[in-house]
Amino acid sequence: MESYFGAVEAGGTKFRCGIGSSDGTWFTETRIETRTPKETLAEVVDFFASAGSRVSAVGVGSFGPLDLDPDSKTFEQITTTPKPGWSGADIPGALRAALKVPVMMDTDVNAAALGEHRWGAGQGLDVLLYLTIGTGIGGGLVVDGRPVHGLVHPEMGHVRVPVTAAGEFPGVCPYHGNCFEGLASGPAMAARWGRPAETLPEDHPGWGAEAEIIAAALHGFVATVSPQRIILGGGIMHHRGLLDAIRQRLQDSLNGYVRSPVLLERIEEYLVSPALGDRAGLAGGLVLAAAARR
Amino acid sequence: MESYFGAVEAGGTKFRCGIGSSDGTWFTETRIETRTPKETLAEVVDFFASAGSRVSAVGVGSFGPLDLDPDSKTFEQITTTPKPGWSGADIPGALRAALKVPVMMDTDVNAAALGEHRWGAGQGLDVLLYLTIGTGIGGGLVVDGRPVHGLVHPEMGHVRVPVTAAGEFPGVCPYHGNCFEGLASGPAMAARWGRPAETLPEDHPGWGAEAEIIAAALHGFVATVSPQRIILGGGIMHHRGLLDAIRQRLQDSLNGYVRSPVLLERIEEYLVSPALGDRAGLAGGLVLAAAARR
Repeated sequence: MESYFGAVEAGGTKFRCGIGSSDGTWFTETRIETRTPKETLAEVVDFFASAGSRVSAVGVGSFGPLDLDPDSKTFEQITTTPKPGWSGADIPGALRAALKVPVMMDTDVNAAALGEHRWGAGQGLDVLLYLTIGTGIGGGLVVDGRPVHGLVHPEMGHVRVPVTAAGEFPGVCPYHGNCFEGLASGPAMAARWGRPAETLPEDHPGWGAEAEIIAAALHGFVATVSPQRIILGGGIMHHRGLLDAIRQRLQDSLNGYVRSPVLLERIEEYLVSPALGDRAGLAGGLVLAAAARR
Repeated sequence: MESYFGAVEAGGTKFRCGIGSSDGTWFTETRIETRTPKETLAEVVDFFASAGSRVSAVGVGSFGPLDLDPDSKTFEQITTTPKPGWSGADIPGALRAALKVPVMMDTDVNAAALGEHRWGAGQGLDVLLYLTIGTGIGGGLVVDGRPVHGLVHPEMGHVRVPVTAAGEFPGVCPYHGNCFEGLASGPAMAARWGRPAETLPEDHPGWGAEAEIIAAALHGFVATVSPQRIILGGGIMHHRGLLDAIRQRLQDSLNGYVRSPVLLERIEEYLVSPALGDRAGLAGGLVLAAAARR
């Protein structure tokens, strides 16, 4: 019998839910506005419960930070989010209780990395990094087909970056000020330049600074985990020319030290856009659901 | 029949060679001065060939950078080393030709990480980072028991670090100037303070700067790969009080963002010295040899 899997991409403004099969075919999907956990999760449950095809497992990629330590008392809860009402929310617990199926959760960026690894721009790679640059900045790391958690999970938006491009701007991260997210997220650009990033003209110096900050962070990721490819998603990356500017600056920053042909000669194959666009996270939900059922 | 494995730690000033068993017991070992590849490797071969117990495989942890891409024409060669005569050296090839046994090579720091993972301070961990800070700086990353290579292999000494502690010092890295190794290696300290690091008095401001630079790099490693533990080896780390100073500064830098009890409350269990001391790399050679024979 064909298996149907449920996928959830849990975000701060909306939840996307879909039902699909293990080969990545989608049957139906919906979007739910993020309100309180109780209201939102009731709608999510209702979507899966009322679907014509019963799902055999659900995979969730969620905003965080998340507690992914199975030995922790707060395992699978959202921890220190500023989103009102969501600290301590247990999405997998709620879905298991209502739907009586296995549920596996990971970070939204690990889910997106898994989706791109299975069906997108990261197929067949041993070490894949997926980075999203938008309202927040986060990275997912897939090694040998599995998302890396380690102590907690990567928090790549919170590396500190050495850049003169930041000028006197102190950054907006409440924890670190001028960390990567504090300097280069959408809200950071808006705070620095006095208007939303998407309204900055193409020749605004903010875009050059943005490329330099992102390239500085990528230099660190390349030297630390040696990914075979880096996928750059998120709203900020939709800006025309930004990806090319980052490619150039990353090569400048590494300065030929890492002797890999793809870095030295084919950087356009190394730093790429998500092949699944903004559907990578939902696709990763299917991968997580399949893993939950095993 | 009991299996004997050969282990080689290939360094720029000496080669250490040992014969041991898969449980980590050592039978004999030797040190060989690093001269030309031909002279040095002839001595290494001689050591293994003349040992009473024939080895069934050899594992090599080597200085680098190394080409670890099996599809590359220069697979297993040392690539861009400034060490005269060693660019293009093929250590595993020479050992296989002479000894007729399987040989597996990895970076010296990946070997040390494997040794500590099997018998030392990293036992049972899913994500372990081993860092050496001495003449050079390098890091090995073991995920699910296997060293991460990815595109090439990690080059953690070459992350750029955002530190005011560097002052006006431009760093000594020929590629990046003030990257981590350019600021914090032994030669960097010597260049900055005008005397060898080991002769700097305990209250010299150089040690505070060193702790701050190392902590800045560690902040990036924690945020990028979320290791469950970080092992800090190498000559510079022998300085009394340095490890404690780094622990304090890492907590300050992360500023409570990564909500893990071991980071927040038991940092002395998180940043640790190698349990195998300077024998971690040789121990990792046994792990590599066992993997070569499989």
